[in-house]
Amino acid sequence: MAKELKQLTKRADNYSQWYNDLVMKADLAEIAPVRGCMIIKPYGYAIWEKMQAQLDKMFKETGVQNAYFPLLIPVSFFAREAEHVKGFAKESAVVTHYRLKATDDGQIVVDPDARLDEPLIIRPTSETMIWHTYKNWIHSWRDLPIMCNQWCNVMRWEMRTRPFLRTSEFLWQEGHTAHATKEEAETEAQKMLHVYADFVENWMDVPVLQGVKSPTERFAGALNTYTIEAMMQDGKALQSGTSHFLGQNFAKSFDVQFLNKDNKPEYVWATSWGVSTRLMGALIMVHSDDNGLVLPPRLAPTQVVIVPINKNAEQLTAISAKLQPVINELRQLGISVKYDDADNKRPGFKFADYELKGVPVRLVMGGRDLENNTIEIMRRDTLEKENVSFDGIVERVKNILDDMQKSIFEKAKTYRDAHVYECHDYEEFKERIKDGGFFLCPWDGTAETEAKIKEDTQATIRCIPFAYDQDVDGLKDMVSGAKAKYKVIIARAY
Amino acid sequence: MAKELKQLTKRADNYSQWYNDLVMKADLAEIAPVRGCMIIKPYGYAIWEKMQAQLDKMFKETGVQNAYFPLLIPVSFFAREAEHVKGFAKESAVVTHYRLKATDDGQIVVDPDARLDEPLIIRPTSETMIWHTYKNWIHSWRDLPIMCNQWCNVMRWEMRTRPFLRTSEFLWQEGHTAHATKEEAETEAQKMLHVYADFVENWMDVPVLQGVKSPTERFAGALNTYTIEAMMQDGKALQSGTSHFLGQNFAKSFDVQFLNKDNKPEYVWATSWGVSTRLMGALIMVHSDDNGLVLPPRLAPTQVVIVPINKNAEQLTAISAKLQPVINELRQLGISVKYDDADNKRPGFKFADYELKGVPVRLVMGGRDLENNTIEIMRRDTLEKENVSFDGIVERVKNILDDMQKSIFEKAKTYRDAHVYECHDYEEFKERIKDGGFFLCPWDGTAETEAKIKEDTQATIRCIPFAYDQDVDGLKDMVSGAKAKYKVIIARAY
Repeated sequence: MAKELKQLTKRADNYSQWYNDLVMKADLAEIAPVRGCMIIKPYGYAIWEKMQAQLDKMFKETGVQNAYFPLLIPVSFFAREAEHVKGFAKESAVVTHYRLKATDDGQIVVDPDARLDEPLIIRPTSETMIWHTYKNWIHSWRDLPIMCNQWCNVMRWEMRTRPFLRTSEFLWQEGHTAHATKEEAETEAQKMLHVYADFVENWMDVPVLQGVKSPTERFAGALNTYTIEAMMQDGKALQSGTSHFLGQNFAKSFDVQFLNKDNKPEYVWATSWGVSTRLMGALIMVHSDDNGLVLPPRLAPTQVVIVPINKNAEQLTAISAKLQPVINELRQLGISVKYDDADNKRPGFKFADYELKGVPVRLVMGGRDLENNTIEIMRRDTLEKENVSFDGIVERVKNILDDMQKSIFEKAKTYRDAHVYECHDYEEFKERIKDGGFFLCPWDGTAETEAKIKEDTQATIRCIPFAYDQDVDGLKDMVSGAKAKYKVIIARAY
Repeated sequence: MAKELKQLTKRADNYSQWYNDLVMKADLAEIAPVRGCMIIKPYGYAIWEKMQAQLDKMFKETGVQNAYFPLLIPVSFFAREAEHVKGFAKESAVVTHYRLKATDDGQIVVDPDARLDEPLIIRPTSETMIWHTYKNWIHSWRDLPIMCNQWCNVMRWEMRTRPFLRTSEFLWQEGHTAHATKEEAETEAQKMLHVYADFVENWMDVPVLQGVKSPTERFAGALNTYTIEAMMQDGKALQSGTSHFLGQNFAKSFDVQFLNKDNKPEYVWATSWGVSTRLMGALIMVHSDDNGLVLPPRLAPTQVVIVPINKNAEQLTAISAKLQPVINELRQLGISVKYDDADNKRPGFKFADYELKGVPVRLVMGGRDLENNTIEIMRRDTLEKENVSFDGIVERVKNILDDMQKSIFEKAKTYRDAHVYECHDYEEFKERIKDGGFFLCPWDGTAETEAKIKEDTQATIRCIPFAYDQDVDGLKDMVSGAKAKYKVIIARAY
């Protein structure tokens, strides 16, 4: 198995295969026997739980409450918002029957007598169900705003899937808010985008570009989609979270009106916003290396692993006794510690396994350390090893964890910033996009040039970024040569 | 609306309608537009989240890890364990297609060209998917035990549904463990039953009888089902959690073997165990009264509400200033406090609403209290009001919350204990069962007498209880007159 641990494909050889290997070998997830679905294994799920807990806290701090809406949506609901159904109809899993039966020869088959009057789809997203419900909840301006979120599974029958990045079933949260005014809804959509950016940058250590999607790339049924775009180590983009200003589209489709302060009926304004287990893909791809996962300490299920190396049981007892107060102190600081004195695995195997799993700090104590009052400390991001004094080790571990949380982000940001290029020439763009990166280019705002870029290069407009000035005076679209309306970020994407 | 709040049906008039009213009016849940499904509203979901958090902690303390397995299960998996498929086939929601399409006249319909080769059912429970997966995880005794849990939605197409008590879709957790020996698996199944009993009694304040199900009432595919049975205020039973010893049934169906310490292949031993949003039904039904919910303080989303009663803005400022340190102190103790100084609702409305929602402690401060350094305190379970000194109010609130957590349990236990009857005569049983209660009766152990009791009275054997001696010497089954094998608890049930 120690040998097998080494068989992670190198990033330089095949980045895509490296990712798949890592997901499997680090025990994050595996392919399910149902097309396009995955099994999230305990180690992967422990990371997701940490992400959920923090996001949930951040949502609640903005006044959002959790709720739960049904998994199944009648097709007729779904059909009410024209753009929405167009966007999701092609990837809908449909429940048509409600019973199985045994045939005379013992086969288990769908019972043809148990056909549903109206087929139901497994939610790909819940706007339609939720706006049908909000109609009963909203009567007056006093009932607004409503800010609900749900953590749930959704299903989109994708043709090409990869664990975490794109799966038919995935776990996510979907927030759905209802407001009395357009301004309030727009502010909410942007606020939640900032919450996502805050989480992804400060907890996941993944730098993101915030911006607005082009009309083509909008959520089906939205007037505006805000996005955070992260760059992977191969220079490709990963859309990591989106927040939608839905205008009054769903309120009109489901006839949700409220009486305003002047006692006049008005349609309600809406937002929705979501992040999913896709974030796990970003977390894995941005930081990890050829030895395995690199995890930001804030999201690592185990932050510190301690491995004793002993010649005999007596020595193990002495080492354990020396380490116990340190383990206790670290735990009292809220740091998760695993003390691995299992004797059925060699230290070399343990080291490789904890590197693969991305445990941020490793402490090793052997017989000589015991004599010398020293301990070996290694940090996972740089793989730097040091033999240090045992005194003050708790403080040192704490400092390394804090430093690592910052430096992993800085490293990713430095990489990202070095791969954002300004480009005004289409021939140059077509050549350079092959090597990845984000290209900041002038765009005329038409779907035609957008389509041509995609056809020629598979790259898409990721967003109109907030971080760059939008001074397009004198700039021309690099494809059409027409007057530019925006500077956009173009990249190939997952 | 204050008027509407009063319209809760009285328990004595119609217990069943009282329950439905309460679920709706206390904003716990509502009926969804999909047959048999419900929408869990934010207030109901906040209670469920508190239950989840505590259960999750208790599971993890026993070494259980969370994971996530797919929603959809191929029919062929499902069919592998004969008893299992027999139990669930009749209530399976089946996915047969993966696409919708628009017809020429704009109707949205199931695309007949997108039929799945093999139909998939929405999981009613995940033994089959999980044991298919465990086959890849288990090779040697070193891989055991495996203890996974998942929090998820499941679907059982029920014909008669009621919010929380029985719904087609419900939320639950399902634990699935794999062990090297029969003894270890049996111990695990019992351990998890005790965890459930501990949670339900000490957090939900609902006393339960622990016991073993009769073969007829076993989980489909189990060798033994352990259960906790609670008594509602109408004397009916609610099965509140079950833990199953599955033997080697699923290991054999999915060919999951391990090499034991002697390097010999053996089939793995299994358990599964689950509790669901059904627990919400027990929580609501056991404690609440004609004024609304009564919640144990440990599970109340808001533990203390403080309502100022003021003549003018100046007085409100003075009251608020006086209360603020108390609010801060309570929060520092980890007590959730809502300060409701909203001026668009009258105090009478607020009082009725917080009673309906079951907020454990209400504090009210008016102008005279301000002058006299007093405050009014009310506890929700007894509705006892007291005007007390403002000094020491934090300590008093804390004590009341602690006391209430105990006394709500005691009240429910006193009620339950007063409605457990020993009965050896079938005619007497048939008469008395009409008024509810748990009947401790001798049983000959046959499915025939069990079926006759059910047919005659709709009552079922809830369990062979652990809490009563099983000395059946000289006792006869009250239906057949045959020699009794067990003393069982019989009751009508939800």
